[in-house]
Amino acid sequence: WPRELSGVGHPRPSDGGSSSGSESSKDSSRCSTPVLDAERHERLREKMRRRQDSGDRWFSLEFFPPRTANAAVNLISRFDRMGAGGPLFIDVTWHPAGDPGSDKETSSMIIANTAVNYCGLETILHMTCCNQTKDDITGHLQKAKRLGLKNIMALRGDPAGEEWEEEVDGFNYAVDLVKHIRNEFDDYFDICVAGYPKGHPEAESYEADLKHLKEKVLAGADFIITQLFFRSETFLKFMKDCQAIGITCPIIPGIFPIQGYHSLRQLVKLSKLEVPQEIKDVIEPIKDNDAAIRNYGIELAVSMCRELLDSGVVHGLHFYTLNREVATTEVLKRLGLWKEDPRRPLPWAVSAHPKRRVEDVRPIFWASRPKSYIYRTQEWDDFPNGRWGNSSSPAFGELKDYYLFYLKSKSPREELLKMWGEELTGEESVFEVFTCYITGEPNKNGHKVTCMPWNDDPLATETNLLKEQLEKVNRRGILTINSQPNINGKPSTDPIVGWGPSGGYVFQKAYLEFFTSSEIVTALLKVLKKYESRVNYHIVNVKGQNITNAPDLQPNAVTWGIFPGREIIQPTVVDPVSFLSWKDEAFALWIEQWAKLYEEESPSRMIIQYIHDNYYLVNLVDNDFPLENCLWQVVDDTFELLNSPQPEPSEVLR
Amino acid sequence: WPRELSGVGHPRPSDGGSSSGSESSKDSSRCSTPVLDAERHERLREKMRRRQDSGDRWFSLEFFPPRTANAAVNLISRFDRMGAGGPLFIDVTWHPAGDPGSDKETSSMIIANTAVNYCGLETILHMTCCNQTKDDITGHLQKAKRLGLKNIMALRGDPAGEEWEEEVDGFNYAVDLVKHIRNEFDDYFDICVAGYPKGHPEAESYEADLKHLKEKVLAGADFIITQLFFRSETFLKFMKDCQAIGITCPIIPGIFPIQGYHSLRQLVKLSKLEVPQEIKDVIEPIKDNDAAIRNYGIELAVSMCRELLDSGVVHGLHFYTLNREVATTEVLKRLGLWKEDPRRPLPWAVSAHPKRRVEDVRPIFWASRPKSYIYRTQEWDDFPNGRWGNSSSPAFGELKDYYLFYLKSKSPREELLKMWGEELTGEESVFEVFTCYITGEPNKNGHKVTCMPWNDDPLATETNLLKEQLEKVNRRGILTINSQPNINGKPSTDPIVGWGPSGGYVFQKAYLEFFTSSEIVTALLKVLKKYESRVNYHIVNVKGQNITNAPDLQPNAVTWGIFPGREIIQPTVVDPVSFLSWKDEAFALWIEQWAKLYEEESPSRMIIQYIHDNYYLVNLVDNDFPLENCLWQVVDDTFELLNSPQPEPSEVLR
Repeated sequence: WPRELSGVGHPRPSDGGSSSGSESSKDSSRCSTPVLDAERHERLREKMRRRQDSGDRWFSLEFFPPRTANAAVNLISRFDRMGAGGPLFIDVTWHPAGDPGSDKETSSMIIANTAVNYCGLETILHMTCCNQTKDDITGHLQKAKRLGLKNIMALRGDPAGEEWEEEVDGFNYAVDLVKHIRNEFDDYFDICVAGYPKGHPEAESYEADLKHLKEKVLAGADFIITQLFFRSETFLKFMKDCQAIGITCPIIPGIFPIQGYHSLRQLVKLSKLEVPQEIKDVIEPIKDNDAAIRNYGIELAVSMCRELLDSGVVHGLHFYTLNREVATTEVLKRLGLWKEDPRRPLPWAVSAHPKRRVEDVRPIFWASRPKSYIYRTQEWDDFPNGRWGNSSSPAFGELKDYYLFYLKSKSPREELLKMWGEELTGEESVFEVFTCYITGEPNKNGHKVTCMPWNDDPLATETNLLKEQLEKVNRRGILTINSQPNINGKPSTDPIVGWGPSGGYVFQKAYLEFFTSSEIVTALLKVLKKYESRVNYHIVNVKGQNITNAPDLQPNAVTWGIFPGREIIQPTVVDPVSFLSWKDEAFALWIEQWAKLYEEESPSRMIIQYIHDNYYLVNLVDNDFPLENCLWQVVDDTFELLNSPQPEPSEVLR
Repeated sequence: WPRELSGVGHPRPSDGGSSSGSESSKDSSRCSTPVLDAERHERLREKMRRRQDSGDRWFSLEFFPPRTANAAVNLISRFDRMGAGGPLFIDVTWHPAGDPGSDKETSSMIIANTAVNYCGLETILHMTCCNQTKDDITGHLQKAKRLGLKNIMALRGDPAGEEWEEEVDGFNYAVDLVKHIRNEFDDYFDICVAGYPKGHPEAESYEADLKHLKEKVLAGADFIITQLFFRSETFLKFMKDCQAIGITCPIIPGIFPIQGYHSLRQLVKLSKLEVPQEIKDVIEPIKDNDAAIRNYGIELAVSMCRELLDSGVVHGLHFYTLNREVATTEVLKRLGLWKEDPRRPLPWAVSAHPKRRVEDVRPIFWASRPKSYIYRTQEWDDFPNGRWGNSSSPAFGELKDYYLFYLKSKSPREELLKMWGEELTGEESVFEVFTCYITGEPNKNGHKVTCMPWNDDPLATETNLLKEQLEKVNRRGILTINSQPNINGKPSTDPIVGWGPSGGYVFQKAYLEFFTSSEIVTALLKVLKKYESRVNYHIVNVKGQNITNAPDLQPNAVTWGIFPGREIIQPTVVDPVSFLSWKDEAFALWIEQWAKLYEEESPSRMIIQYIHDNYYLVNLVDNDFPLENCLWQVVDDTFELLNSPQPEPSEVLR
């Protein structure tokens, strides 16, 4: 949470600012149409204003950077889960002691980068300035801009020692940082500053502190988030006092749901805030009962938030989550602010990087690995919109160490072994793992298979539509890793397959992607001749031997939507060229995530290695989306052919 | 027809040539996907090779520039009609006496430009070189390139007088022109040269003439078209002789169906060819019977063409049409080469200009006036493909004099008056004209209305699907000028609404565009409130007062197609910005084409002027394409509202 201790400063002309270099300037390129989601292209301060104007209420979530890489993986999952509730933004605190601007997986910079780029969340990066050189700070800001971060919370930070003194021309107060950002980066960043409803503990007076706050706003801050407080009156008085001295920007109350006795005590020590007696009276007797304290904290936060919202002057609430999920989510649900399953603007997770704001087409292959797709395409100068195009020959990033971090399963090795088998006895035991993942049934040791190397989450609801057929084919060695049913015009509001604005219709071509043996591929290719004009296929092995009937290596649109008053959106394609980049990743996952669970030279490892070396990766598209999906028939025919009496040798040669 | 008289020249290295600046070099832009029609992006010589490889037989058509602007209008209509039969290319002869490189409507350059750009025909422009300076010729070639012409027939041309002498360093022979084109324009143009099956009359010998031909090919010609001949043996021997001396490029026989006694005589005089006795014997007795001669000519041409095609060495036939339609079309039909209604690659007429090769999206407004659309967008640097985009704000060319030429009706003033009324008695007589155009019934004076200012052709087959409803609304003053039914996934091979490759599905949103009075617009707007989420509308008057519910002025896709192994194609949009450019044209046509038929200040003219000044142009889109078209209900509701008892004044004010 905000830990800034003071701030004084100078006025700036007006809020309008120059817009040179501003990200909000309209792109004039013919193709760059913000089609589906206007909000995606707005600045945070504009989104805030739009929400206020429309009377919508919103919330935001504060997190701090984790200490370990494992904790980072978990925090990112938390971003995804809490992001699903629809926060207007999240913010990531700045820890000067933790090398916050570095490239470490746990740095503030990289965590914020992940939130924006991989989780698609509007994000504010905190930044403190005291005890730092101008060049350091400029360097951090340039890096933030380069990574696609668009919002900075400008703070002073804690002085290094007791004997802190102001430096001449140095960054002594948050206002200096605000001015520096505006001087060096013009209007590029939205800037947030901290407010102290009880006055800053080190300020000469409450009034003097208000004056410092106004100086920060005049210097260029766009809105204010307050330090936590325990009574709604505290905030409402503060807000009134701010308005009285002419602070007109949004002021967002910081809400701290009490989650435990120790975290509260630590907080009180750091913030020098006093906990009201009536709260102490409740908490002291139950101090060893975590659940009781948390429930009390939730009640307290809900009732204070209700008072704030009922006042009519509060439009958004900012939550200090302490990186925990339960209490904040519960408060938000009780307040009705948590929007479970918000409408998907596109069928895949959109990145919030400004460079990607026009992106609306992706290959289907990364459907379960959107972060990997975003990572591997981060160096692209522009992103496909409207059409993928077959001449794009996109340069996908290499599979590097860093990439393995984001690919690392959330489950530890022991758990993966329980799911995928402590010991494999043959290809059939691999088939069994795939089958259990599809059915949701426990494996023979009683463990459910909730993730696979190609998919870190349980089966998508949409895939459930195909469950029965998928189970049947996985049992027989068609090891599916991606699939979608055909859809011939369902409403865009359909809870399972819908996406985009309401009033539209969504469509899909049936898609099936799987690993399988060369024996099955041989039979499959014979069968596919019968479906030549209807089914497109791409078949490739780890060495890159590639068989396809795609015309001119053109992409095939497999998901599209028709909306009132819009152009056609086709967010997912099967692109033959990208498939070869995906192939490298898909095969590598056998080894990196599965084979390496076992000892070198162990039979289990050799089984996975054998599959990796000899199986083919296949994708099939049924182009005739209005008819019944023929891909199951293709697979059935293949098995039938395999089961039929062996042909004469002469027949094989044909 | 080719009138070159001689040619000698020098060798060039090989046919491969350098490809710098070549139009065949692949465009590397992400969006530039040649999606639907690979052939559209090939060079003529490649198309020819592909046809030969696939065993397809083809034909081409030769025309000469007309003498008058009226004749030019008719010739362009002929291009459209004969283009529908599927020629591989047409060629336009070069008339040195007719200022062939000028901007006159009747110049060779402008006629060829029209064929390529407005009629979408692959076109060869003839060019002669004798008695011309290098600079003149370079200027012509540069202009041809600028206009999008890609093929040149390089000829010597007739010397100016009897006393012609070779000029040192001048252009004395066709081969000089071939070399000049290759020197100055590298491999940009495909070059054709003339061959003489009987040897050139001025050549020293048949053998010497063959040598000259070989020199032209070595200098860089891509293929040969022959002078006409009367017996298939003549051509087949010539072809054998060419191959014997190492001419390997395609040699296309020039076919001249005899169409009349006088044209044959004139031809014989010019070409110094001798008509075989057996032909003279047939023709002389019937020389005053045009029909008999033409029938004989057709028979003769058909049997000669059959012999040529049966020889197995002839893949394409080139026809000297003499700008006439009947004989050539008949020969082609009998040979089975005429492909009536060839598959439409897109629902609108594609331009053959190389700059437009990626174009696959257009506003619907110009559906009946594609030439006007191409004319008004000719200065664009790039053309929409995949998506129209709302930031394109395209600059449409002004309505100029030149434009009026292409807009001029094919029907003369007297005929238009018969169709549209010698004398109008009120707005109702205008309604009557619109209604007769829709129904195809004669007007009260017994004349059918076969064209309108907004549509120079009879009603499209597709519009016929809506005939009954259109009749009803036109009678009541909803004066429709454009419409399409909704289509929810018909096969792309559907004879009426289909387009694009087979195996696909085409879709449409229902569209209706009409002029109507402000009284009807007022009622319509009230009715549209009920359809707010379903129907998009744009309503504008001549002054530009504009009412719309289009979200963010975004375009609305109203025609799209889904094809096997392709991205989505959406060739037609309703674009709010372009609509305002179309509006100027649509309103101007009332005056330019209709009002001006009448005397100034005449009541008829004032009626049209009144409509022009006071009516609104309206377009409606029903976004719910899977449901029954609701636009007729919208119109019915509007009339019902108008017929209901007058509201209280207070209600009007609301």
